[in-house]
Amino acid sequence: IKNSWDDLQDFARKAYEMGRSDPRKVIFAIKMGLALSIASLLIFWKGSYEDIAQYSIWAILTVIVMFEFSIGATFIKGFNRGLGTLCAGILAFCFAELSIVAGKLEEVVIVLSIFIIGFCASYLKLYPTMKPYEYGFRVFVLTYCILMVAGNRTREYTEAVLTRLVLIAVGAGVCFVVNICIYPIWAGESLHNLVVKNFKDLATSLEGCVNGYLKCVEYERIPSKILTYQAADDPLYNCYRSVVQSTSQEDTLLGFATWEPPHGRYRLYNYPWENFVKVSGAVRHCAFMVMALHGCILSEIQAPPERRQVFYSELQRVGAEGAKVLRELGSKLERMEKLSSGDILENVHEAAEQLQKRIDHKSYILVNSESWEIGGRPQELEDLKNLVDIQEDEHVQLGFKSLSETVLDLRSIPVRTASLPPCDAAKNMFRRWPSNLSSNAESFVKGDECKTYESASALSLATFASLLIEFVARLDNVVDSFEELSQKANFKEPIINMPPGPGKKRVGTWVV
Amino acid sequence: IKNSWDDLQDFARKAYEMGRSDPRKVIFAIKMGLALSIASLLIFWKGSYEDIAQYSIWAILTVIVMFEFSIGATFIKGFNRGLGTLCAGILAFCFAELSIVAGKLEEVVIVLSIFIIGFCASYLKLYPTMKPYEYGFRVFVLTYCILMVAGNRTREYTEAVLTRLVLIAVGAGVCFVVNICIYPIWAGESLHNLVVKNFKDLATSLEGCVNGYLKCVEYERIPSKILTYQAADDPLYNCYRSVVQSTSQEDTLLGFATWEPPHGRYRLYNYPWENFVKVSGAVRHCAFMVMALHGCILSEIQAPPERRQVFYSELQRVGAEGAKVLRELGSKLERMEKLSSGDILENVHEAAEQLQKRIDHKSYILVNSESWEIGGRPQELEDLKNLVDIQEDEHVQLGFKSLSETVLDLRSIPVRTASLPPCDAAKNMFRRWPSNLSSNAESFVKGDECKTYESASALSLATFASLLIEFVARLDNVVDSFEELSQKANFKEPIINMPPGPGKKRVGTWVV
Repeated sequence: IKNSWDDLQDFARKAYEMGRSDPRKVIFAIKMGLALSIASLLIFWKGSYEDIAQYSIWAILTVIVMFEFSIGATFIKGFNRGLGTLCAGILAFCFAELSIVAGKLEEVVIVLSIFIIGFCASYLKLYPTMKPYEYGFRVFVLTYCILMVAGNRTREYTEAVLTRLVLIAVGAGVCFVVNICIYPIWAGESLHNLVVKNFKDLATSLEGCVNGYLKCVEYERIPSKILTYQAADDPLYNCYRSVVQSTSQEDTLLGFATWEPPHGRYRLYNYPWENFVKVSGAVRHCAFMVMALHGCILSEIQAPPERRQVFYSELQRVGAEGAKVLRELGSKLERMEKLSSGDILENVHEAAEQLQKRIDHKSYILVNSESWEIGGRPQELEDLKNLVDIQEDEHVQLGFKSLSETVLDLRSIPVRTASLPPCDAAKNMFRRWPSNLSSNAESFVKGDECKTYESASALSLATFASLLIEFVARLDNVVDSFEELSQKANFKEPIINMPPGPGKKRVGTWVV
Repeated sequence: IKNSWDDLQDFARKAYEMGRSDPRKVIFAIKMGLALSIASLLIFWKGSYEDIAQYSIWAILTVIVMFEFSIGATFIKGFNRGLGTLCAGILAFCFAELSIVAGKLEEVVIVLSIFIIGFCASYLKLYPTMKPYEYGFRVFVLTYCILMVAGNRTREYTEAVLTRLVLIAVGAGVCFVVNICIYPIWAGESLHNLVVKNFKDLATSLEGCVNGYLKCVEYERIPSKILTYQAADDPLYNCYRSVVQSTSQEDTLLGFATWEPPHGRYRLYNYPWENFVKVSGAVRHCAFMVMALHGCILSEIQAPPERRQVFYSELQRVGAEGAKVLRELGSKLERMEKLSSGDILENVHEAAEQLQKRIDHKSYILVNSESWEIGGRPQELEDLKNLVDIQEDEHVQLGFKSLSETVLDLRSIPVRTASLPPCDAAKNMFRRWPSNLSSNAESFVKGDECKTYESASALSLATFASLLIEFVARLDNVVDSFEELSQKANFKEPIINMPPGPGKKRVGTWVV
């Protein structure tokens, strides 16, 4: 008893929290109560039409099934209800005439007609494109049955149909008036906000991934929820997961939004809602790259931290610029502004170019020349390299050195290592291998294995960089679909706050 | 008119096709019609209880709202309906007494109570964990209103409540009997089939990706549907997309399956359905890697085909072995068998090891040594390399050569090129760059650019290989969750058809 009382208190607190964080939910509940009360006033109708009080339940029923969270959903339900009822009314009228003509076989005709109606409606509602009208089929069967039952009892089919239609119309009217006039909740706006949120979430995720990778974040044990793609506590993971998962929600909202009349900031007739979904799809296409980047962090094969340091500033810059672009697009979408005249991708492209060049110049770090078939590294190359390493004005002194050497070298990275958690490269890399290795460890040369791992681990850094560059390439696509949307939806021109000032004259811009 | 007649014919043909391809849908529709007809027989009840015919609509209503495609869904709806009706009945009884006591204020009490009930139910049904009971809240409000209306008219609240409860029970009984006794459709079985299908789809996608990559499949123009993650015609894309997209369907089916009693092949009490979803999640985790692999095909930066040839057999073997493992797991899951004693991953791990070693030995192909900061490639290395290239027993003669050279070299690949579509490496690589380049082409050294692209394009091959190896690593996770499932669900021991025969004695197996 004590426990369940605590549970109840907990539930009440959470329910209260829900209302505070999203007041729309409270408003919706109040509106629903209000619409119901208004419809229920019909019960007390006293006057010439006694029937109205008797059948008032039809108006109430209509309110209960039609009143939905968003205006669009209410419209769809209303359409379904109207069409379903009308069809059922017509059919019921026909079959009723038939059953009266049939005389003795009346009951057989009625039961048979119900079977046929039930069969057809149930079958057709499984048809793929009929999904949004599922409710309509249900209403159709329901109304048909009710009319047959009521008509059969009183033999006044016409009256039964008409009274009900009027009351359903009254109920629908109450729904629409209450739902639209009092603090309307538009599905279109929810869709808009969802897409904006996707932009922001992805930016957070991207930054988290790149920074995590550079800080050599390690999962002690990867949560099995991530491995089975369930919701987990990891914020980085949750952000991109929500972007990927929002498809079905978007589709639902899109279905509702297309039913909504022009309103508020969305004043166009035939507002291009599907373009919002398209933009979100392009963002999702980027999210899959962030997912792959996160895969590099989750992977068993990890690049040694010193090598990551070599590309530290470039990787970080691409991550930061990419996130900036996403955030800017997100806030432009939020304010419904067109893109400014400058190339929004300029900085991120430049950053990607820097990274690419850096990789190009330092690609010897990414491979393991010791096992090249072309005869190993010649002594001359090594000597030369050692010489250059010393001369280099780099913070790091890593090249072809073997793993054991590089670990020792950690001390010689002067600046950035301070902020790093102590990563033991050798331990990281072999974290999960040994369990598999031990079974047949004696049967092969350990040294050879080590080299193979080492090369795999270095290549994982190349993979991370490639994926990041591919992410930047995919941003183009986001910008394109954003521009298409901003054209079609007639976004306003951006307000330029800053004086145009002398822009930095840049030469040699490399555009991905 | 002619057009709409054609449309109608088309629709009829498709509807017929739907029934032929999935007979369960026809059966469901027949069952629904049958249940409705049985319930409608109550209309003709003649006897002492006249009320039953009058209120027979309640039984029909119950059938209409409760009869769902799968047994589990019917149970959930039945539970919702029962609980909702009961709560509403009790509350209606209380408020009815209150309203009679209130005397003159009766109408105010009734309207107020309806408002409160409507508010509470609408608010609570928005609570996240209440999602599956949404229908219950609706029934609750509906029943409450109906009882108040009916009771208010006749003043016989108790009788109104009881008659309706009995009729609802009758309707629910008809639903359960018809739905369970005649060709039952189980949500659990659908879930099982869905997970099996995911295994097969992913295997197809993986093979398609690897083979497509090796055959240098190029998208003339990437369908914008892929770029915005919408359903497209591309089978390769559709297969992995359906794996990724099946989350929500799985969750729905899981919700239904947990309500189903033990049946058929699923005879355990508390069958571990959630483990099926977990296995599917692990498959999805792999699918994201296949998605990233496909990203390499979609990418603008493409590795030149000759370089792909260097790793042809290794890449293909990993792809084929990976798909084989997925297919085997899928068919084992289909037959509900445990894993055989041998290591199912042995072959794929070996293949991954081969690939890794090959990369290790050939990693000079993946980088561009010309721009190394350590002073470019020394002449000695180059000479040596040229020498080794000639001596090598490889089909390909590619190493550090510049792009223009490699294109000419295509002729010298004797065996596999025959089956290849003519890929012009230079053209592929710069397919989409020029449009961007032209704007500021004069401002930088073209030659330098070319090298940077070349190195990026070679690294993209390294990325593909890394991702493939990461895919293999993720297979472990699938096997683990499969084993957990097979333990919990008590799968049968595998039937060994082949004689145990002398297994190949292998040494030095490298296990990822």
